[in-house]
Amino acid sequence: MSDTHGLTLLSTLHEDGRLTVELAEETLPAPKGDEVLVRVEAAPINPSDLGLLFAAADLANADYAEGRIVARMSDPARRALVGRVGQPMTIGNEAAGTVMAAGEAPEAQALLGKRVAMIGGGMFAEYRLLGAAGCMALPDDVTAEQGASAFVNPLTALGFVETMTREGHKAIVHTAAASNLGQMLVRICQEDGIPLVNIVRNEAQVAILQDMGAEYVLDSSQEDFVARLQDAVAATGATIAFDAIGGGHLVSQILNAMEQVVSKNAPYSRYGSDILKQAYIYGALDMSPTILTRSFGFGWNIGGWLLFSFLQKASTETAERLRQRVRDGLTTTFASHYKARISLKEALSRDAVLTYSARRTGEKYLIVPNG
Amino acid sequence: MSDTHGLTLLSTLHEDGRLTVELAEETLPAPKGDEVLVRVEAAPINPSDLGLLFAAADLANADYAEGRIVARMSDPARRALVGRVGQPMTIGNEAAGTVMAAGEAPEAQALLGKRVAMIGGGMFAEYRLLGAAGCMALPDDVTAEQGASAFVNPLTALGFVETMTREGHKAIVHTAAASNLGQMLVRICQEDGIPLVNIVRNEAQVAILQDMGAEYVLDSSQEDFVARLQDAVAATGATIAFDAIGGGHLVSQILNAMEQVVSKNAPYSRYGSDILKQAYIYGALDMSPTILTRSFGFGWNIGGWLLFSFLQKASTETAERLRQRVRDGLTTTFASHYKARISLKEALSRDAVLTYSARRTGEKYLIVPNG
Repeated sequence: MSDTHGLTLLSTLHEDGRLTVELAEETLPAPKGDEVLVRVEAAPINPSDLGLLFAAADLANADYAEGRIVARMSDPARRALVGRVGQPMTIGNEAAGTVMAAGEAPEAQALLGKRVAMIGGGMFAEYRLLGAAGCMALPDDVTAEQGASAFVNPLTALGFVETMTREGHKAIVHTAAASNLGQMLVRICQEDGIPLVNIVRNEAQVAILQDMGAEYVLDSSQEDFVARLQDAVAATGATIAFDAIGGGHLVSQILNAMEQVVSKNAPYSRYGSDILKQAYIYGALDMSPTILTRSFGFGWNIGGWLLFSFLQKASTETAERLRQRVRDGLTTTFASHYKARISLKEALSRDAVLTYSARRTGEKYLIVPNG
Repeated sequence: MSDTHGLTLLSTLHEDGRLTVELAEETLPAPKGDEVLVRVEAAPINPSDLGLLFAAADLANADYAEGRIVARMSDPARRALVGRVGQPMTIGNEAAGTVMAAGEAPEAQALLGKRVAMIGGGMFAEYRLLGAAGCMALPDDVTAEQGASAFVNPLTALGFVETMTREGHKAIVHTAAASNLGQMLVRICQEDGIPLVNIVRNEAQVAILQDMGAEYVLDSSQEDFVARLQDAVAATGATIAFDAIGGGHLVSQILNAMEQVVSKNAPYSRYGSDILKQAYIYGALDMSPTILTRSFGFGWNIGGWLLFSFLQKASTETAERLRQRVRDGLTTTFASHYKARISLKEALSRDAVLTYSARRTGEKYLIVPNG
């Protein structure tokens, strides 16, 4: 088999503060060993892709040409990203497509001609060469579009539940809960009988989750939010939270609500309750500082949560069990919804960029590189 | 043996927002079983005692009578402390004194007539009845004053080093580092060969620690603090911090310095370095919010650290090893320094209260209840 040529999307931060995002021609060699060559058919633009794609560049005032964006970065933002200056970065955590060629290893050969979901970066491209371990064969009745988001959101939602169980909690608080990921978590918790407190930011999002049968759905824009949060934490016994937002007071409000609940029937202690209150920040929808008003004693913990770190620590058995559950539920529990399907070129148009970079719930885009 | 009568210090928060701190007569029965009755001879006023003693009461405008203070609390502060309203709280985490009577159990009898260090609360009193397990017999050449601070600071400082080792770090960042506790940590790290980055708040404190031979001493009030912090973190490889302050930007600055260092020679990742950067907040010298400017990726963790929780989780062997090390070093490694010795009554005088409640480094008071 000869080399394959295709377009790939590259993001480069330059020394002078310019960020260039463009389509570039690449040449992929024939796969060797356990490698496979996949024609990319559908790739979601996840919030986790946007940081690498655009960082903190000024997108409203950028130059948009066909297949090329040039934007400016502020000096502090550029300095914070000194590690990537001058390096063209490929983009796209996950996708689905068809295996066009395979190396000689049996695990690669087994995928030949199959439709697969993939994880591993660089998926915003026409073709992708990667190891068979980064692929999951899709069931015959699952389309590339249905399989495109088979890794990031499903494994993250399942990872939350695994983390909860492993760390001895029995109910979860989740923020930005109307997202595709949040909706998956609602369905998983319904299936598994796990109490879930959903925090959203407006009435429309409340309706989305209530229509799915979610029991606790709180609108953080309402005046009585803190009181209702405390009620929901009391009703569920939640002592662990997963937060996609990061900035502002929300994590602090959640930990304070938990502390109020767990200390209510305990003898007074100056140090607060010794029941651990845990929050994980897994996203950065709000890049402003996290503000912690520490009325929650000393029995608390806040950490970053990252899918790749979770999977690294998980046993092979756990990872395989989670993947199997995703494979079985791609059109049900783990179904994703997209606002629009766009080509690689369209992904660099001003209208599309300004829409999907706003990270608004319900406005996820799907790139169709060979559409 | 008949009952014993003595004074004890009580702090009571009332429903109407008044906080009363007063000396009250108490009657202690003869010790039974493993109990001992100790005449309290020296008790330090630790920062960890102040929260229970005064909470957030307005001490500058309080009424000071002999042996009695009446202060006001703001409504929000009172509401946050609803758990203690109406309950007279005894105060004082630790002390030293002489065992006057003992229950029939061998471990109690073994302490009869001995000078002991004690932990367990309620030590701001003339006498204290407690279980033998809360006592540590002092060597013959150690005075009550030398043994008064044998638990909280020494075990906290040793607990930091144990935590560092157990969690796989190799160097420590410590804030408010010129405190009695901080000086102990300097000596422990010197003895054990552990690199330590000391952060203090003014030039005088820099001098104190440099005179002790501390290698890395940074003044956070200096303009080049952030750059120097990064240099010190790079030189030591510190990835764990213990912070006594809590409020403000310092924890965030430390984690960001660590992230800058560990990501410097690694390939660029949008998610930051996967090397865990850990901070523990063990005090609240600054009760204002903790502000986290999250430029430290997702491999981070911040939690509360509490001596009592640490000791609960430690094995009996570890706890005994640490106690033995303290006992051997009470007049050297674990020596404490006091600004003044005061009676229980003097501890309630306006001058003393306004001095020791300011929690200034080097201004620790020692209560001498039977002086």
